[in-house]
Amino acid sequence: MRIQTLAIVGVGLIGGSIGLAAKRRGIAERILGVGRRSTSLATAQELGAIDEGVLELLPAVRRAQVVVFCTPVDGIAEQILTAAPSCAPGTLLTDAGSTKAKIVRSVDGRLPQGVHFVGSHPLAGSEKQGAQHADVDLFQNRITVVTQTAQTDSAALERTASLWQALGSRVKILAPEAHDQALALTSHLPHLLAAALAGILPPEFNELTASGFRDTTRVAAGDPLLWTAIFEHNRTAVLEALSLLNGRMDQFRAALEASDWNALKDLLNQAKGIRDALGS
Amino acid sequence: MRIQTLAIVGVGLIGGSIGLAAKRRGIAERILGVGRRSTSLATAQELGAIDEGVLELLPAVRRAQVVVFCTPVDGIAEQILTAAPSCAPGTLLTDAGSTKAKIVRSVDGRLPQGVHFVGSHPLAGSEKQGAQHADVDLFQNRITVVTQTAQTDSAALERTASLWQALGSRVKILAPEAHDQALALTSHLPHLLAAALAGILPPEFNELTASGFRDTTRVAAGDPLLWTAIFEHNRTAVLEALSLLNGRMDQFRAALEASDWNALKDLLNQAKGIRDALGS
Repeated sequence: MRIQTLAIVGVGLIGGSIGLAAKRRGIAERILGVGRRSTSLATAQELGAIDEGVLELLPAVRRAQVVVFCTPVDGIAEQILTAAPSCAPGTLLTDAGSTKAKIVRSVDGRLPQGVHFVGSHPLAGSEKQGAQHADVDLFQNRITVVTQTAQTDSAALERTASLWQALGSRVKILAPEAHDQALALTSHLPHLLAAALAGILPPEFNELTASGFRDTTRVAAGDPLLWTAIFEHNRTAVLEALSLLNGRMDQFRAALEASDWNALKDLLNQAKGIRDALGS
Repeated sequence: MRIQTLAIVGVGLIGGSIGLAAKRRGIAERILGVGRRSTSLATAQELGAIDEGVLELLPAVRRAQVVVFCTPVDGIAEQILTAAPSCAPGTLLTDAGSTKAKIVRSVDGRLPQGVHFVGSHPLAGSEKQGAQHADVDLFQNRITVVTQTAQTDSAALERTASLWQALGSRVKILAPEAHDQALALTSHLPHLLAAALAGILPPEFNELTASGFRDTTRVAAGDPLLWTAIFEHNRTAVLEALSLLNGRMDQFRAALEASDWNALKDLLNQAKGIRDALGS
């Protein structure tokens, strides 16, 4: 993978990390960062994540062969549809959004001839925000989901997969809906849970929290605006995952209410087996 | 704090860490480790957490001025009542159990003249087990709850507080029931949640988990036997905490069902404010 000009739209934690990794690995000759605030662009440039900051989308995408949208999920589809008519034929557009079906289905079939979009989601990140938290190794050995639909151009799919592999990631190809169903359970539901748990902590108990509470609620520090948009995109799958979890929590509650310690131990054993298999 | 002979009953992660910290900080001249398996005692001795391993409780406590019970919560009260008649007058007994009311109330008023028990709980630990994971700095700047009841001897309370301070900890004095109510929310409920979430992960989604899922479920790797005993001890308070959480989760569900994104954002904002206040 060797790109003459790579444009990164949104240079926060993810966009900044893509820039750093693309530089370090010699993937792009020139990296343009597109953002609305010149201070963020200046930070990204000082960190070496981009070569040049650009405040306007269209002039940037005109110069790029590959554009990666790293903006909040509720803006990505519109930005792609806005950018595409300005792109040269052969331009590859992809993204790093946490949801895929709404974005991919909004774009599918609506791009000019020769301009392709393939959805992506690197399963890496943090509750932190901003290019100042960018990490050159963020994608190293992580999975990036790349989406495929009946409309997906196979050459564009391959280029997208190659891009993420070049950035250090392993690639898994899924339908957008399969991605969203899985992530509802592996990412969006944990966020909801963490936020529910953090939300009921009375301030006088703060000093009585230890690493267990902090680990379990860490993601609740994520940006509420970004996460509201994710929940809006993936509402149905999250509600299904929540029902599944509520059923499981009812089993815990029933065991506690009945003082059925064998049943409780079995539930804890199953959970430990599954968690141990994930590693640290 | 200067102890001639300190006995640590149960030399796992917590007991081993007490031994390492007591050595490093010159708190005890001699440290006896009491355990049922000579291999664990040998490991603790090799790591420098204890000077001598002893397989029998009574000969060890006879020689000690301070005894710390670091065994599972369901055995602590009985071990204290068994040990106390063999202790010399003036011996201080304390523990490191994750629940306090059942233990403290089982022991209160049942010890020989001159032998005192004061309940303790260092809010430090890990989902890992065994002296091989002991950490000399485990208690550094952490809170240790030391319990007080109408029966608590005030000199023994002070010695217990001094012991934990000497080990690096800050001390907070609470009634056993107040401790259990707080920890139901800050530790036991997070464990239940983490186990419920881990328990519903289908194996085919393993590779689609990232740091969010792993953080949120980390504690579910803890020992199911230890945790079953904790839930048994603190059943009522955990059920109350679970009801509180279910109420909050219902608010999230209602916002999702109604597509009320302002309400969802408010819930996420509240959670972020509380979580941010805890620090990393």
